[in-house]
Formats: sequence, C-alpha cells, structure tokens
Amino acid sequence: MASLEVPANVPLPEEDAEQLHKAFKGWGTNEGMIISILAHRNATQRSFIRDVYAANYNKDLLKELDKELSGDFERAVMLWTFGPAERDAYLAKESTKMFTKDNWVLVEIACTRSALEFLSAKQAYQSRYKTSLEEDVAYHTSGDIRKLLLPLVSTFRYDGDEVNMTLARSEAKILHKKIEEKAYADDDLIRILTTRSKAQIGATLNHFNNSFGTSITKFLKEYSGNEYVQLLKAVIKCFTYPEKYFEKVLRQAINKLGTDEWGLTRVVTTRAEVDMERIKEEYLRRNSVPLDRAIAKDTHGDYEDILLALLGHDHA
Amino acid sequence: MASLEVPANVPLPEEDAEQLHKAFKGWGTNEGMIISILAHRNATQRSFIRDVYAANYNKDLLKELDKELSGDFERAVMLWTFGPAERDAYLAKESTKMFTKDNWVLVEIACTRSALEFLSAKQAYQSRYKTSLEEDVAYHTSGDIRKLLLPLVSTFRYDGDEVNMTLARSEAKILHKKIEEKAYADDDLIRILTTRSKAQIGATLNHFNNSFGTSITKFLKEYSGNEYVQLLKAVIKCFTYPEKYFEKVLRQAINKLGTDEWGLTRVVTTRAEVDMERIKEEYLRRNSVPLDRAIAKDTHGDYEDILLALLGHDHA
Repeated sequence: MASLEVPANVPLPEEDAEQLHKAFKGWGTNEGMIISILAHRNATQRSFIRDVYAANYNKDLLKELDKELSGDFERAVMLWTFGPAERDAYLAKESTKMFTKDNWVLVEIACTRSALEFLSAKQAYQSRYKTSLEEDVAYHTSGDIRKLLLPLVSTFRYDGDEVNMTLARSEAKILHKKIEEKAYADDDLIRILTTRSKAQIGATLNHFNNSFGTSITKFLKEYSGNEYVQLLKAVIKCFTYPEKYFEKVLRQAINKLGTDEWGLTRVVTTRAEVDMERIKEEYLRRNSVPLDRAIAKDTHGDYEDILLALLGHDHA
Repeated sequence: MASLEVPANVPLPEEDAEQLHKAFKGWGTNEGMIISILAHRNATQRSFIRDVYAANYNKDLLKELDKELSGDFERAVMLWTFGPAERDAYLAKESTKMFTKDNWVLVEIACTRSALEFLSAKQAYQSRYKTSLEEDVAYHTSGDIRKLLLPLVSTFRYDGDEVNMTLARSEAKILHKKIEEKAYADDDLIRILTTRSKAQIGATLNHFNNSFGTSITKFLKEYSGNEYVQLLKAVIKCFTYPEKYFEKVLRQAINKLGTDEWGLTRVVTTRAEVDMERIKEEYLRRNSVPLDRAIAKDTHGDYEDILLALLGHDHA
C-alpha cells in the first residue's frame, strides 16, 4: 500500500503550476509550498502539472526545480517529480556511471518492478540517453557480475501467475546441486533466475525450501563477503520479499555513520506510491522504531520535510 | 486485514434469525442458507442474531446448530458463530483436555491475541468452565513445558508500543548467553519471553539479530526435534511474524495426508475477522498456490463452502 497522501479535492494543474511558479519568484524559494503541492500529488497529477507549467510559462518545471533547489532536498524533489519510468531510467543511468557504480540499484529496478514497468523504464532510458540499458550494463561490468546482471536487465519476463510444479521441482534440484558445488555463477543457475517468471521462481524456491529443509538464502549466507554472491542474494530477496529488501536498504542507509541520503531518497521516492506502508511495517518490526521517527532523527530541514510528507507523516 | 465479507445492507437480526429458524425446519437442513447468513456477519452481528434467536424462539442458536449439523462442517459453523473470546476459551479448553492435548493452541492463543483479548478469553473460560485457564494448564502439564506455558498464559502483558533500548540490549545478551549454553528452559529466558511486552520482546530480538548476526530462531533450529524447543520457537514466531506462523499451521494442515481439519478450521475461524488477507498473501508466497485453491482441492461439500466463504471466496 502506498504512503502518499493526496487531498480529497486536488486543485487544477493550472492552479498548482501557478503556485509553484510563485514559489520560485522573489527573494528565496518557498520550499514549504513546493512540498505541500508536489509531495501530495500522484504520478499522473505531477505529470499534468509539468505539462501545464511548460505550456503556461514556457519553462521545464524540472529545470526550474534544479535551478532553485540544492543538496539532498533537490535530489528528493527531482526524483519524486519524475514519473516512475523516467525516475528508474535516471537511477539506472546513475548506477552504470563509473563514479557512482551501484549494481544494487540495477538489481533492485530489474527485480522489483513488473515486466511492463521495467520495459517502460528501459524505453525512457533509451529516449533520454540514446543508448540501451543493456549496452551500458554490458560495457561497465565484467566477469560473473556481468554474467548475472546483463540477462537480468535484458529479459522481458513473463508476468503471469501460472506455475509449473514439475518444472519447479526439477529446477529446485538444479539450484541445490549448483549451490552445493559452490558454482554460484553456473549457467543454469543464472538462466533460471534471469529468465523464469517471478511466480515460477517463487515456486522453485519454495520447492527448494520444502525439499532441502532451508531456504536458498541461508545456503548463500556463508559466502556473503563476495560481491557477486551479495548481488545474487539481493536478486532472490527482491523477488521473494521486496518489502524486506527495502527495509534493509533503509536500515543500512539510516544506521550508517552520517546517513546514506542517496539510498534513503531512492527508496522513499520509488516506493511512496507503491508499497511504502508495508515497508514501514517491516521497518518497525525489525528496528522497534517507526521509520518516520528514525528519519526525523537523522535528517533535517526541507529534506526531512519532504521525506516525511511522502511517508504520509507531514506533521511528525 | 480481515477476509470476512459483510454485505453493504445487512438484514435486521430478526430477519436473519427467522431465516436460520426456517433453515432448520422441514426435511433436511438448509446448509447453504446457514453459510450465506452466518459466514457474512461480523462478531457483533452474530451475537445480535444469537440474542434475537433466543428471545424469539426460546432456543439457543448454538445448540440448534449442534443438533442439526455434523462433522467438520458443524465444528466450523460452531467455532465461527462463537464470539472471539468464547471461541478462544473453547479452543483453550479443548487443548488442555487429555485426549486432545495440544500445547501449540495455547501458545497461539496466548501470543497472537492482544492482552485485553486474551484476558477476555480467560474470563470467558472461567465463566464457562468454572475453572481458570491457569489451573488447568498447571494441572495438565509438567516439567519444562509447564515452566514455559504457565507464565505464558498467566501474565497480563503490557500492550504499549514503548521500548527500552538499554533493556533490549542487556536482555538480548542474556538470551544469547542462555542459548549458547543450551539452557533453553533457563529462568531468565522464560522470564523475558513470558513477562515483557510484545514491543519490548521485538526490540530485544532485533538487538539479538543485530549483535549476533542471525535471528534467535536460527539458533534454535538445530534442536527442533524437542517439543519444548518447538514450543519456544512457536512463542517467538507468534510474537514476531504471526502471519508466517499461521501460514505454516495451514500449510501443515493441508499438506498432511488426509488434511488436519482441526487446524484448518481453527485458523480460518479465528483469523477471518483479523488478518486473513495477510495470511493468504503469505500462503501464496510460500506455496505458489492460492489458499482458497488449496482448500478447495482438499475439502468438499458444506465444509469447503463455509471455509471459502470465510476466506472471501464464495464463488471460488
């Protein structure tokens, strides 16, 4: 369930655009106004506001925000204002760049979005960067990591619910054999995780658990020093327990000395319209502190305000 | 979230009582009518129907149901028609009887209900059986199992959200020490689990996980042959992941050769008004088959119909 709160009576996009235009004018920017509008509109509404803003003021709203704002607050407002596909494209591009290389983000985007959402992100990537996500990933990775990531971002997965139990049984056996042999980058293992539907992978991993008495991630636990194995675990976690995967990203971002604002902003902006309520629940369960309180303790100012607004805790 | 579906326009209790009265009349009983009424009324509505039935027909609705129905269907209708406290009292009584001894049910009731709900169940137990749950548990158990169960069912736990992080840290250390010493029935370990609030136990177990790199249940996994350790694990599971605990009870009930109708009926009737939607989600995730389909495959007739109705799948 989404945490985003949209008022019962949403102003017309024209009114929102006008208020935003005013917020940029004069001495200083009215950050509170920006939050009170943008952090309470869904993707369609934000997109209308951008269209109207461009038509009425002949300016790109995103460029205006970029010019007026700065730091973590700017990044949060920008990421949030994007539509989901555009935002994923932007995050994916960032993570293939040399200086910000972050293979986790690629796994996260490839594995927690639906097949169609991910395809839209790849289309947005192409139209924005004039390259394909696949070529960038292939170019910037190597070895086992490329062997896993490239098919992961390439496949247009089947998204249906049907599962083939016979196949699940035989592929669970293959996974178990490969993992016992410590052949974590085995062709078959990668083929199964990168091409099967999420429902089918779920069935295979359930069979694994039933037949071998423990989940596949527990088998992988011992080798968690290795980056490749870490990514493999993230793939599985994203498929099976996305809310726990995101809880962990948040936990690590917040507990880090100095807070990892990139991770925090990414999870809040990408999940506020999707499953943030569930992630908040997992966060409380795992940390015994509500997420909004943890964020309020670690951040401040406008950045804190927009994160709390997106979490549905404007007055926390 | 509850799976129970109540129609937008609920008939008056008088009308429901009259329809039920008719359903018992003439040749055979109209089971479909019983399901269409009772399986679509919440606890308050069912209680009104019972009151009106008693007033208008001078008969106890539960006794009528008992007389007219039989087998698994009867048990499901009876358990469901009870109010939550009465039902818990009945289940607890069953589970302390010699022939049906089932310590799991006691753990389940003591650990997944709120403090007030559990207190109401104990009050219902006393008014119905003229004994206290505590004395029955004490009388029918012994050794380590009594040492754990008796305080578990005795404590009126604090139900607040506040947690003391310093305490969580020190008690996590105690738990770790005791478990490393394999002192699973240690006084302190039992004191912590049976007297601390659920929120505080959650914080302690989170600290355990953070400090020792793995959850307490993984430490206990190796000793799972032992009934006492099994119960200890159930206590922890009920506190931390009730939806997973119930998913497992359902999975084991359904996968058993011949289906364990008692477990199945218990979970469906006790959770339909509480968190059955979440349990269904966990069931699908862990078994790759929707719960309603699994139940439809394993049960039949009126019994199947009432279970599916309570799951919100009348027309499955």
